[in-house]
Amino acid sequence: MVIGRKARAVVAGATGYSGRELIRMLLDHPYIELVGAFASKSADEAPLASVHPHLTGLTTLPCLPYDEDAIRRLEPGVIFLGTPNEFSHDEAPTLLETGAVVVDLSGAYRLRNPEYYPVYYGFEHRNRELLDAAVYGMTEFVRDDLRGAKLVANPGCYPTSIIIPVKPLMDAGLIDVSLPVICDSKSGVTGAGKAPSSTTHFSEVSESLRAYNVFKHRHTPEIAAGLGLENRSDRLTFTPHLLPINRGILSTVYVRLNAGVKRSDVLGVWRETFATSPLVRIFDSEQLPEIKFVAGTAYCDIGAVIDESTGQAVIIGAIDNLLKGAASQALQNANLALGFDECAGIRR
Amino acid sequence: MVIGRKARAVVAGATGYSGRELIRMLLDHPYIELVGAFASKSADEAPLASVHPHLTGLTTLPCLPYDEDAIRRLEPGVIFLGTPNEFSHDEAPTLLETGAVVVDLSGAYRLRNPEYYPVYYGFEHRNRELLDAAVYGMTEFVRDDLRGAKLVANPGCYPTSIIIPVKPLMDAGLIDVSLPVICDSKSGVTGAGKAPSSTTHFSEVSESLRAYNVFKHRHTPEIAAGLGLENRSDRLTFTPHLLPINRGILSTVYVRLNAGVKRSDVLGVWRETFATSPLVRIFDSEQLPEIKFVAGTAYCDIGAVIDESTGQAVIIGAIDNLLKGAASQALQNANLALGFDECAGIRR
Amino acid sequence: MVIGRKARAVVAGATGYSGRELIRMLLDHPYIELVGAFASKSADEAPLASVHPHLTGLTTLPCLPYDEDAIRRLEPGVIFLGTPNEFSHDEAPTLLETGAVVVDLSGAYRLRNPEYYPVYYGFEHRNRELLDAAVYGMTEFVRDDLRGAKLVANPGCYPTSIIIPVKPLMDAGLIDVSLPVICDSKSGVTGAGKAPSSTTHFSEVSESLRAYNVFKHRHTPEIAAGLGLENRSDRLTFTPHLLPINRGILSTVYVRLNAGVKRSDVLGVWRETFATSPLVRIFDSEQLPEIKFVAGTAYCDIGAVIDESTGQAVIIGAIDNLLKGAASQALQNANLALGFDECAGIRR
Amino acid sequence: MVIGRKARAVVAGATGYSGRELIRMLLDHPYIELVGAFASKSADEAPLASVHPHLTGLTTLPCLPYDEDAIRRLEPGVIFLGTPNEFSHDEAPTLLETGAVVVDLSGAYRLRNPEYYPVYYGFEHRNRELLDAAVYGMTEFVRDDLRGAKLVANPGCYPTSIIIPVKPLMDAGLIDVSLPVICDSKSGVTGAGKAPSSTTHFSEVSESLRAYNVFKHRHTPEIAAGLGLENRSDRLTFTPHLLPINRGILSTVYVRLNAGVKRSDVLGVWRETFATSPLVRIFDSEQLPEIKFVAGTAYCDIGAVIDESTGQAVIIGAIDNLLKGAASQALQNANLALGFDECAGIRR
Repeated sequence: MVIGRKARAVVAGATGYSGRELIRMLLDHPYIELVGAFASKSADEAPLASVHPHLTGLTTLPCLPYDEDAIRRLEPGVIFLGTPNEFSHDEAPTLLETGAVVVDLSGAYRLRNPEYYPVYYGFEHRNRELLDAAVYGMTEFVRDDLRGAKLVANPGCYPTSIIIPVKPLMDAGLIDVSLPVICDSKSGVTGAGKAPSSTTHFSEVSESLRAYNVFKHRHTPEIAAGLGLENRSDRLTFTPHLLPINRGILSTVYVRLNAGVKRSDVLGVWRETFATSPLVRIFDSEQLPEIKFVAGTAYCDIGAVIDESTGQAVIIGAIDNLLKGAASQALQNANLALGFDECAGIRR
Repeated sequence: MVIGRKARAVVAGATGYSGRELIRMLLDHPYIELVGAFASKSADEAPLASVHPHLTGLTTLPCLPYDEDAIRRLEPGVIFLGTPNEFSHDEAPTLLETGAVVVDLSGAYRLRNPEYYPVYYGFEHRNRELLDAAVYGMTEFVRDDLRGAKLVANPGCYPTSIIIPVKPLMDAGLIDVSLPVICDSKSGVTGAGKAPSSTTHFSEVSESLRAYNVFKHRHTPEIAAGLGLENRSDRLTFTPHLLPINRGILSTVYVRLNAGVKRSDVLGVWRETFATSPLVRIFDSEQLPEIKFVAGTAYCDIGAVIDESTGQAVIIGAIDNLLKGAASQALQNANLALGFDECAGIRR
Repeated sequence: MVIGRKARAVVAGATGYSGRELIRMLLDHPYIELVGAFASKSADEAPLASVHPHLTGLTTLPCLPYDEDAIRRLEPGVIFLGTPNEFSHDEAPTLLETGAVVVDLSGAYRLRNPEYYPVYYGFEHRNRELLDAAVYGMTEFVRDDLRGAKLVANPGCYPTSIIIPVKPLMDAGLIDVSLPVICDSKSGVTGAGKAPSSTTHFSEVSESLRAYNVFKHRHTPEIAAGLGLENRSDRLTFTPHLLPINRGILSTVYVRLNAGVKRSDVLGVWRETFATSPLVRIFDSEQLPEIKFVAGTAYCDIGAVIDESTGQAVIIGAIDNLLKGAASQALQNANLALGFDECAGIRR
Repeated sequence: MVIGRKARAVVAGATGYSGRELIRMLLDHPYIELVGAFASKSADEAPLASVHPHLTGLTTLPCLPYDEDAIRRLEPGVIFLGTPNEFSHDEAPTLLETGAVVVDLSGAYRLRNPEYYPVYYGFEHRNRELLDAAVYGMTEFVRDDLRGAKLVANPGCYPTSIIIPVKPLMDAGLIDVSLPVICDSKSGVTGAGKAPSSTTHFSEVSESLRAYNVFKHRHTPEIAAGLGLENRSDRLTFTPHLLPINRGILSTVYVRLNAGVKRSDVLGVWRETFATSPLVRIFDSEQLPEIKFVAGTAYCDIGAVIDESTGQAVIIGAIDNLLKGAASQALQNANLALGFDECAGIRR
């Protein structure tokens, strides 16, 4: 229970899909109050409800052009950055000076190793101390680090769908790491953001499927780090595909289990790891996770099919890319950083 | 049967969806040979198969920047313009000087009354003689005019789906014109073209439906002219909607029939009107036209449900907006203008 | 504020889509507790979370075969019937004997005039007193009747999307009733229920659109009654279409306004009518309602485009067919019948 | 060039999607004439155009209940079986007695090893000589065997998308067979046939993705045989997924290449293998195959991304499951068996 004033929240990058989802949740949050919403520096002021007609009737807040001083004057307790990578990289240090917890939904502070930034993100990382200090917020694995964190690097959507089910099995030594881990991921189009492009044009996406950025996707080093496979590109292959749906990611991960490992061992490790994780659901029957079960929710659903005779395992992780893959995980992280219940404001 | 050389065809506006469909048909045409494909003036030269990967293996033709002289040197017998309205307006006169038949898929020469152009198209029409001379190519109604035509204004997609079923009933005096004709049309997204925009962004279109340009759509005066309802805005309402599909238009048209008119009268008029029209299919059983039946085909399917006790009639027209609503109707028209069989090169 | 025990709720017809949505809301309701879920009489007992994997982790309740005695023993304060029409017709009288409020989501008690039942529903209505006593629960118009109601006939999805925007204009005398009201509605596939059929088979529905049950749909007399157009089939045409989306209805309604009526008059009537209706949103700018804005919400969004020179008006209503068109309206009604806040348990 | 009478063709299983596509092509075939169409034994006679409204105006042939004698009397030169597995198993011997070439689109004669039938197809194979004699018709690899073949087992859709790109690399010794080959396939819903079921219900499929039949799919032994990996379940993993689209399969295959193998080696092998295969398209630029490029066509598009530093390779194969994965490959096979050009009647 929280006594007294609500924490004050600001969302920068309020015009994007993740920003919209964050706003929707914050407008209904028991302990946090949305006090400001900001777009890019060059944006015109407009009512949030005209930027996102979905929010009609829910708020009269305006969406303002990004302005550091205006944010400071709002005295925020938490600032969510749903902004581009370089923007987050540049602005995070100043925003932290406000004393607010900063939860960055971009990739600017996710990779421990700064050398990946020029390669995968196209810019040199110039805030290396902050990079070291940032908490990589895959909530379920870092709750202790999150309490009191100042800068949270909110994980990527693909990595979330892969690391949650696979990391515990890696850590428990169930996986034969001499073979490559193959991650075949499929994502809905909202993962590509709100800016129109030929690759998100309805007529190009619908009734189709395509692989993209094979071996080159930004999330590759993030997945590698999460699975302890950094600098082992022979041991990890990640292929993202664009699905003709709005929301949701399903990752199909292929690993070989060590000799003698049973399906029950996999389920056992998951049950122990996620015993106190209300937003991870283990599918332990014949039913496998499907995107439909998680779309619109904050859950990560996980399941596995295992050929015990060969050790071949197919691990499935499913999330809503805008929620557990972005906005709701950001809120889980903010809740913990601010001392609230992890699920506060997150409808199950 | 055609003896000797094939007619030589040029497609300008080859990068768009209609252009692509035209090219696909022309590459397989028995009497017409595609000799040139052109994009906008500022485009870079590129193989057609890289502009439209669908065409991989089908042609080695390049797509060139638009160049009047280059077109002239190709000595075309027919030029298809899948270009923007003003571009067609400006270029048609010069292209006609080549002696080629020009089939313009834009709206530049569709409206007899030039006063509509500033209102609906945003530019002043400066080629009024040509506007008078152009044949409005709703093929099924103007075959005689098409033979020997020099400039064909290819009809709009929505008007095609509406005028084909309704005009014969109007002409036959079956419709009570004292009540408004209500045209509720639904179109797939390819109708909005290939240029990405927020209104054709996958995440905005999918799992949704919206009405747009109500009372203001460019096709309104074209439909009015086709139905003999010009300058009677109290007698015609046209509302287009954007469907979350690629291809196809279904128009639901509401009219009141004159007293005593039976369903059999409607079917009779259609049968007579379209007796020699291989690309109009009359649905005369309980089964109504559906977009699925026409998508990917050159047909216009028409059907009706009639409450004989009240005279209320629901008339359905369905087409593929890129084919009968654009490219295949253009080819029907070109075939007739060049003296070929109407369906040559058009797979049924 | 509610003191003491929560109201006890039972959902019969728990395996359908409306049942699932009701259950989802009830599991999160501040004043109502879901105590029982029932399927058809011949169903096997199964965990709700295996019937609806979406509910994994949210409830351990079983879904039981329908059993009146079992329901009675649960001592429900409210019973929701998401059951077939005839089943609701037959069972409602007995269930009312338990003293519970019965909210019936079927059509069994919606039509005041029993003579429509054989024609539109295929069975003779044998509970005419109950039919007279039932409250037709279009919440926004009958809040007073709902307080203390015993049997609520929850409205159909199409009628909700049409009657909410149009009835106030009818009642205010803004509409020229000498012309027919044309209702062109488009619905997502969940409206057809969960039972597979060739008309809801993915490959038949996707990339298509079709009109169905023209002049014959069950909701026709319900719409007529809601608009005061009973027995005037010459004044009302209703055409439903099947959209290739999951959820949502958009109705485009064509009326002629009386001479001199302005857009501001329409907006004024709506504002007054819905001043205290938190779940009706009036779109009073250029932006029209779209299905995307209401999908997954309990709202009815309404808007209009009016040609003041002719009086032609295009009225748009949009809802989520499973929520405002079924489950959330049922919950609004139950809340009011039980004396709770109308929106309790309904996330905005 | 063909002189004289066209070959006479019969389609059994004419009500399914593959049957429909076959019929569509046969109605436009230069050397083959469709003389009969048959449904199941218990079906009622109906016009083909009412079974498949898409065919309206294209044929007046009836669709008849299956009747061996009626087929015999039609004196077919080729019989296509788009029938269930056991039906094909049972009927093929008798139909072959007519002297016609039989092209079976089911799995009844695809697997050389009869022991797989009880495990994967649920029935004992009782026609083992015929199983030995049947030509497994992956056209591009068996043209010589097809000329004069009597029974052709038309390949499965998934195997076609995988074997065409991968088998040549296997045969050329480019792949490190000590590591497992991982086949992650995604298919449109028409692959599941025309019979409605909860797994093909629009509302369950759309906006979702799911893996199914992991390690158990019928096509697994067929893929293994095609790649020379029979009885090596540790070396092959095949996971099919259901995509929310109508038509098309994209398979993403993960292999490790032997040390020193370059992308140019892969392309070189493909170019040599498919030099005379008009329906295989090699994507040799940055552009990868996408479902959209093959949907509605008879092509198999193939491409690869290779990390030459590690040898990890991602091989992509894409087909239209109803065409190259069923009907058009059947027609390629029939054409060759009858001595016609492979592509006759197949629009490119």
